[in-house]
Amino acid sequence: MQYVDMSDEELKAQLDAVKAEYDAYKAKGLDLNMARGKPAPDQLNLSLDMLTIVNENTDFATAAEIDVRNYGGLTGLADARKLMGHIMGGISADNVIVLGQSSLTIMYDLIAHAMTHGIMGSAPWCKLDKVKFLCPSPGYDRHFSICEHFGIEMIVVPMHEDGPDMDMVEQLVSSDSSIKGIWCVPQYSNPQGFVYSDETVERFSKLAPAASDFRIFWDNAYAVHHLVEDHPTVANLKDACDRNGNPDIFYMFASTSKVTFAGAGIAAVASSDANVANMKKFMFYSMIGPDKINQLRHVLYFKDQGSVEAHMRKQAQLIRPKFKAVLDALDQNLDGLGVGTWTKPMGGYFITYDTIPGCAKRVVELAGEAGVKMTGAGAMYPYKNDPDDKSIRIAPTYPSLEDISMAAQIFTVCVRLASIEKILADRA
Amino acid sequence: MQYVDMSDEELKAQLDAVKAEYDAYKAKGLDLNMARGKPAPDQLNLSLDMLTIVNENTDFATAAEIDVRNYGGLTGLADARKLMGHIMGGISADNVIVLGQSSLTIMYDLIAHAMTHGIMGSAPWCKLDKVKFLCPSPGYDRHFSICEHFGIEMIVVPMHEDGPDMDMVEQLVSSDSSIKGIWCVPQYSNPQGFVYSDETVERFSKLAPAASDFRIFWDNAYAVHHLVEDHPTVANLKDACDRNGNPDIFYMFASTSKVTFAGAGIAAVASSDANVANMKKFMFYSMIGPDKINQLRHVLYFKDQGSVEAHMRKQAQLIRPKFKAVLDALDQNLDGLGVGTWTKPMGGYFITYDTIPGCAKRVVELAGEAGVKMTGAGAMYPYKNDPDDKSIRIAPTYPSLEDISMAAQIFTVCVRLASIEKILADRA
Repeated sequence: MQYVDMSDEELKAQLDAVKAEYDAYKAKGLDLNMARGKPAPDQLNLSLDMLTIVNENTDFATAAEIDVRNYGGLTGLADARKLMGHIMGGISADNVIVLGQSSLTIMYDLIAHAMTHGIMGSAPWCKLDKVKFLCPSPGYDRHFSICEHFGIEMIVVPMHEDGPDMDMVEQLVSSDSSIKGIWCVPQYSNPQGFVYSDETVERFSKLAPAASDFRIFWDNAYAVHHLVEDHPTVANLKDACDRNGNPDIFYMFASTSKVTFAGAGIAAVASSDANVANMKKFMFYSMIGPDKINQLRHVLYFKDQGSVEAHMRKQAQLIRPKFKAVLDALDQNLDGLGVGTWTKPMGGYFITYDTIPGCAKRVVELAGEAGVKMTGAGAMYPYKNDPDDKSIRIAPTYPSLEDISMAAQIFTVCVRLASIEKILADRA
Repeated sequence: MQYVDMSDEELKAQLDAVKAEYDAYKAKGLDLNMARGKPAPDQLNLSLDMLTIVNENTDFATAAEIDVRNYGGLTGLADARKLMGHIMGGISADNVIVLGQSSLTIMYDLIAHAMTHGIMGSAPWCKLDKVKFLCPSPGYDRHFSICEHFGIEMIVVPMHEDGPDMDMVEQLVSSDSSIKGIWCVPQYSNPQGFVYSDETVERFSKLAPAASDFRIFWDNAYAVHHLVEDHPTVANLKDACDRNGNPDIFYMFASTSKVTFAGAGIAAVASSDANVANMKKFMFYSMIGPDKINQLRHVLYFKDQGSVEAHMRKQAQLIRPKFKAVLDALDQNLDGLGVGTWTKPMGGYFITYDTIPGCAKRVVELAGEAGVKMTGAGAMYPYKNDPDDKSIRIAPTYPSLEDISMAAQIFTVCVRLASIEKILADRA
């Protein structure tokens, strides 16, 4: 029976039972964490062989087109561009630039550049009265904090299972020239794990923005991060944009942070010929070249066809049981109670739990008090403001299977407790 | 006898002889290069052991304060901050941030940040009518191109053997609030190899800028790059600034690009507590953390006291003969002719040759036609404009000893040829 269908009396009995359960967990003095979208140590162990693949026996004169130990190679090694083009779903190496170890830094730098110099001849954004970005939400907090840092106004766009609300995106982008960008995580969106449908990609590629310097920031962070064999794959945005006469409208990003080492992988941006030529020009001012030794490590480690996919299957074997533990706990403890809904991603790093409106903060608070740290409620919305106070991001990867199982159990108790409290309070 | 003291007839006879020498070299169809401030392959070989020092046997739970293979550690590993503080001449690890592989990128990012956000509450530089930087010249072209990129007006300050003209620096900095910075390479200045005197450092630390957001950009790129044992060492600017009540006036930079691997080392910025706290705050928006695996490589490789210095002595053994070959050629072929002067650095990567006024471009042109590529004349001045057309940067490190010896010989022939041409033209 759903909680809302229970009488006050029944509900109060439930409250007492759930509270007892909660207090028992609380008494354990646990220290668990479901907040961090980080690989677990066993995932990092998968790539240990890469650490020594470039070594004193490497023939640096022939290993790449330049000696990777020396300056130069502004846009990255050819083979690294090829590798990242493959990871991004089949982009030609000529349209890829491989830089350092953080795709977030590339995104930040592109926006910083647009602030001071505009994009391809447009007015510098810092000279404009207003610059706005569309923010499909819930989304990735680090995207939103870049906007906040630069004073870019964020407009929330609802997320659906097939991607952002495209009616709203099309209407806004075509009518408001102060809208300069949109954040997208197309494959296993952060935090819901949704995959943009082919139709969504097609509609993105056909956008007719009022601003010539509007760009889609297509953060394909989880491009190859599948948990199951039979998964959907996001369509190739570049192909669609080329086909629809809109080649310059996007920047695409990816990194190997969650493939090899988090924060010590390689990161890339891909776009049209014109955007790439433009980026090369201004990248010159900020660097001599990226760390090509680390690029060579990745190139040698993934040199055989299919080796990225084989590697990601090993990652999935480690992550899948943790996702299952969380989803099982939600199914077993919350199904049928009418206390919320949750996503069942086929890849990526997160599950989103939506409480009944007005409960997310309370759930996170209760979990924290019982020793389970969660991502702050609201963090996945611009200005940390979840209007319905309902979205909670669950990150299953980092804790051990035992810890995540326990944390998920406790989480479900917190959801039940907060939901009953809320229903009773609404009735009073 | 100096060329200027020769009769027209004597000089023309010299011209014929030098021209014959020049043509003989030209006929060889050589392909030599004295343009690149890059380590030679044998220098890079010195650090090969570092490549595998972090490996599958590393205990990542204890090797540093966090697992270097995972996210986090925004300001760098504690031991890496200690190492770079040591290289920068004794800066406390708390005042050091270690980032990626390029100090140029850190400088660029600091200026980009000041453009959009100002420094510690000052007006964003992009909102000001005019922003100016002082540019001791000749200097490093990449410093100047950052200014050019951001539309920062560059004011040339003459360089002396003990540093920039401090009378001019003091006068300008204290009287013009649009002057926001000055570029300095204090230890073995690029391209002259001068070392700032203790008095110069003291005067820098006592500057009383009209602009509260004025900063000294102290690029200590060659801090430990000595060629001889008995060398001068630049004084600790941070200590001087602290002592003189001017703690926030500087940013200090260094990297291991010319210690270990060029473009694959680690880079750092150091400053006051307040500047470091401020940097941490805005760095957050652009990254999760730097590549800590590469930081750990450096930490383990240089873990013993004095190991950096021992390593740099090995570097010096490889570089010193090349500097000697160039200086010997200049001494033997140009001394007494009155065709210019040159520096005799005790470290760093460059020698500067000053022709008689109006000859630098012609020398570089002649060298190029004879198969010896040089840094473009003027490149060491803001806007590539050497007002006297006299400075030429010689980079001895990258070519083999044989090649640099040959290139230096040819260079001296070009200097003689251009000088005679100029003297004769002036007489006509």
